[in-house]
Amino acid sequence: MTDPHHAADRPLANGRTRIDFQTEPSRYRHWKLKVDGDVATLFLDVDEKGGLFEGYDLKLNSYDLGVDIELADAIERLRFEHPQARVVVLRSGKPRVFCAGANIRMLAGASHAHKVNFCKFTNETRNGIEDLSENSGLATICAINGTAAGGGYELALAADHIMLVDDGSSSVALPELPLLAVLPGTGGLTRVADKRKVRRDHADVFCTTEEGVKGKRAVEWRLVDEVAPGSKFEDAVHARARDFAAKSRRDGVGPGVKLVPLTRVFAPDGVAYDSLAVEFDRARRIATVTLRGPPAPPPASADAMVALGSQFWPLKLARELDDAILHIRLNEFDVAAIVFKSSGECSDVVAYEHFLDANKDHWLVREIRHLWKRVLKRIDLTSRSLVTLIEPGSCFAGTLAELAFASDRSYMLLGTREGDNRPPAAIVLTDANFGAYPMSNGLTRLASRFLAHPADLEEVKAERGKMLDAEAARRLGLVTFAPDDIDWDDEVRVFLEERASFSPDGLTGLEANLRFAGPETMESKIFARLSAWQNWIFQRPNAIGEEGALKRYGTGQKPVFDTRRA
Amino acid sequence: MTDPHHAADRPLANGRTRIDFQTEPSRYRHWKLKVDGDVATLFLDVDEKGGLFEGYDLKLNSYDLGVDIELADAIERLRFEHPQARVVVLRSGKPRVFCAGANIRMLAGASHAHKVNFCKFTNETRNGIEDLSENSGLATICAINGTAAGGGYELALAADHIMLVDDGSSSVALPELPLLAVLPGTGGLTRVADKRKVRRDHADVFCTTEEGVKGKRAVEWRLVDEVAPGSKFEDAVHARARDFAAKSRRDGVGPGVKLVPLTRVFAPDGVAYDSLAVEFDRARRIATVTLRGPPAPPPASADAMVALGSQFWPLKLARELDDAILHIRLNEFDVAAIVFKSSGECSDVVAYEHFLDANKDHWLVREIRHLWKRVLKRIDLTSRSLVTLIEPGSCFAGTLAELAFASDRSYMLLGTREGDNRPPAAIVLTDANFGAYPMSNGLTRLASRFLAHPADLEEVKAERGKMLDAEAARRLGLVTFAPDDIDWDDEVRVFLEERASFSPDGLTGLEANLRFAGPETMESKIFARLSAWQNWIFQRPNAIGEEGALKRYGTGQKPVFDTRRA
Repeated sequence: MTDPHHAADRPLANGRTRIDFQTEPSRYRHWKLKVDGDVATLFLDVDEKGGLFEGYDLKLNSYDLGVDIELADAIERLRFEHPQARVVVLRSGKPRVFCAGANIRMLAGASHAHKVNFCKFTNETRNGIEDLSENSGLATICAINGTAAGGGYELALAADHIMLVDDGSSSVALPELPLLAVLPGTGGLTRVADKRKVRRDHADVFCTTEEGVKGKRAVEWRLVDEVAPGSKFEDAVHARARDFAAKSRRDGVGPGVKLVPLTRVFAPDGVAYDSLAVEFDRARRIATVTLRGPPAPPPASADAMVALGSQFWPLKLARELDDAILHIRLNEFDVAAIVFKSSGECSDVVAYEHFLDANKDHWLVREIRHLWKRVLKRIDLTSRSLVTLIEPGSCFAGTLAELAFASDRSYMLLGTREGDNRPPAAIVLTDANFGAYPMSNGLTRLASRFLAHPADLEEVKAERGKMLDAEAARRLGLVTFAPDDIDWDDEVRVFLEERASFSPDGLTGLEANLRFAGPETMESKIFARLSAWQNWIFQRPNAIGEEGALKRYGTGQKPVFDTRRA
Repeated sequence: MTDPHHAADRPLANGRTRIDFQTEPSRYRHWKLKVDGDVATLFLDVDEKGGLFEGYDLKLNSYDLGVDIELADAIERLRFEHPQARVVVLRSGKPRVFCAGANIRMLAGASHAHKVNFCKFTNETRNGIEDLSENSGLATICAINGTAAGGGYELALAADHIMLVDDGSSSVALPELPLLAVLPGTGGLTRVADKRKVRRDHADVFCTTEEGVKGKRAVEWRLVDEVAPGSKFEDAVHARARDFAAKSRRDGVGPGVKLVPLTRVFAPDGVAYDSLAVEFDRARRIATVTLRGPPAPPPASADAMVALGSQFWPLKLARELDDAILHIRLNEFDVAAIVFKSSGECSDVVAYEHFLDANKDHWLVREIRHLWKRVLKRIDLTSRSLVTLIEPGSCFAGTLAELAFASDRSYMLLGTREGDNRPPAAIVLTDANFGAYPMSNGLTRLASRFLAHPADLEEVKAERGKMLDAEAARRLGLVTFAPDDIDWDDEVRVFLEERASFSPDGLTGLEANLRFAGPETMESKIFARLSAWQNWIFQRPNAIGEEGALKRYGTGQKPVFDTRRA
């Protein structure tokens, strides 16, 4: 394997050796989270010198992945630590500047793989803001006090309500095309066309106008929801926040659940979490993620669950799995395939599913289910080959079984292994597999799987609660292959070797196209369509070539384009 | 403008200077069309030496754009010249070989712009086959007598019914990823996932297996509809053709309408058709397409229309417009913007709309409406900036008004021009604007335009038949800008200059994302999602670099990949 590009990758700042997705409000450098009764406010006040990588300053509230990691963390804390918050106001902590979007110097120097995965994470964070409103009743207001350009406006587009100061200069803009010869990378075009339903010719003018649109026209063109003069802006934002808080159906009570730091140990060839282990086989380009079943039975009551807080097994495991996936995505680009395994008793996992179902109206249970939904979506959208190995001693039941259905393929051992006296592997389906975890396309993984024969889905549904062995799972269409002990090792080895031998780009495109059959949603459009265009354009010489717009931005030299339309 | 890549473009074969989209059965080199009662058969028998470009042989029924131009022509002739045909059998004219897909040598040597536009045209041809079945009742059976690989299987996927010889070797395959590090370019993945609803893990195995799938497994995995042993294959195909013909609702009668060759004159700076003129302003990278209104009133009766045949104005204009768009797409890559203009009387165009409506159940009228639908979709999918200029003397009424709604922007002159005593410009809407011409997303252009406010669509609908001046058109949201005589020239000039100054790649992605708001269909997925992934991957070093798979295919050397997943 040669890889001439690795050497040129930009080093992380401050001697860091990996990007860390764990943070907490006391460590934020770019955001401040303030909660006042039922109104939360998130102030963006980027520390210019706090860039994740060396070589650029984060001027004008521009951002890099490090800024977005803090935002994603703050959104999670609003869910779990502030169940009484009913509206969040996104705003700038700097006067007359809202947000200049993703930092251009960072983009110009980043590897393609980092850029694409950075865009994906920011997209997921924006989707998370929308999910918070749609499913947890915590609405978002974006109050723009200056210029919201590029990713800055894309952040605003994630809000339920966009307010803009009407001062003759504050504006919203998507200047990527005219300035940089690329597209907005974080769902901007799709949200303009599909969420805000901006008329297509207005959208065309907007996206080709470097300076953006301001004042009354921004409202007429549906780019913002309201404008207010500077003197009345604070009052207007305050009043609007009260309106949204009053309308919110969020009913969380109590002090919330503190998201304590994850227990993690990074070693050269893996990461050890409490309920999860990641092992890297770098020669074979494989990451094996082994999830462990619950260490104890479910708590006796919802109150006991709240008392456990972030030590409650389903919550802890979801957070650890999310962290592990993000670590692989952004720090381990050479991993070709993620292998999911599990260890434990199916019945122990099922006991937790029953506990969650019995308390399904408790705010904390709802948030835990929504967290699993988002983690599983993140796995669906991870551009690595995914495979689940279901073997004796595993516990792919309920929520954990979703990993098999999120995988490109699954292998389930038929019968037992010679010399292993554990019973044969089983899958157990629960109610959770039939509605709790829709994919980006709006369907459950099983509904997507059985698109051709909805009757098969009903047949599978009737098997809930049963220990399904490999023969049954294969017959029902739940697993791809069910080799026996004699064939297992070779089949799995050949598959993994083959996967590592294919073009990584080709696999990314193939998997993205095959994973999401059926309907499209705004979310699936953003990932499947907008991201693909973005990937393409970001790779073209017109953007990244020596004479391209990204390279020449700020040099005073005009870019030179290959003028052929493709 | 520098363009170092032009020089390296592969020359056309036989000294040709442009790709011609006009052909007819007597000139086919690769297909034979046979019509026997209500059963038509299309035999693919590629002439190895008949490549469109120099430098490759079309072995094993592999194809290039020239082969697909003949197929597209044959499909049009089935519509217009053979209204009694009720089923078409696609098959190979060579023994034990079906089709090896797009020619790899051709792909390896083609410019990116040609490849992308080639894939787009083949996609449109496949969609046309499906449209012929869905909307005109002419079903397609694909009879595979050997290996259908890559684009060969993608051709089969366009059929209603796929039959495969069960002889132990004949197979279907999408080997692009394992062989070439690219994706199937003609809708393959989307049709596998969404049309045939192949289970995603089966699809994963299928698309990563170079040799494909054959026999019983091909049926079980829904890749084909039936298999039959070689000895019984002919009888089975014949019987199936009879079944489909019997079920067809196609009711065309008579001898059909001969599609006579278009009258065209190619000059250095334009193309003159009977009802249409194309002018190139190469310095400014603009193609102006001027459509002329009808030269005479509509015929007195449907019989008189049939007697006019392909001279009937709506049919002739549609064919000429289609040819002009394809010429610009594939021969004039440097054109940044297509400007639509028209000349004539709105009332004359409206008279034709009324004639078509009055005869809307006549098979020929239906085919003409479907042809316009496809031509307009082709325009939607053309990766050039589209603008319609509506000026005094123009006739954007009914079907022609769709060009304004297909455009990224439209400009309509407010009032008259000094020294021009013609009346101010008008737009006239007719029933045709409210249903006859759905876009790829399944909505009409006006419904897509007014997605935010369906009430606006109703308001516009109530204005059918009126001469709408610029003020009214702007108020109703039908045009983007309505400058007066004083501002017109500057506004239009600045827009066109700006468009030519932007990155062509960025514009392609921007326009593709903004043109199709709202729902997605299989067709929109193919163009908006699959094509974008394809574009990206086709541009990556892993495919086209010196050590990439496309470059190394057939050399005996293995490709070397940048292993990072993006």
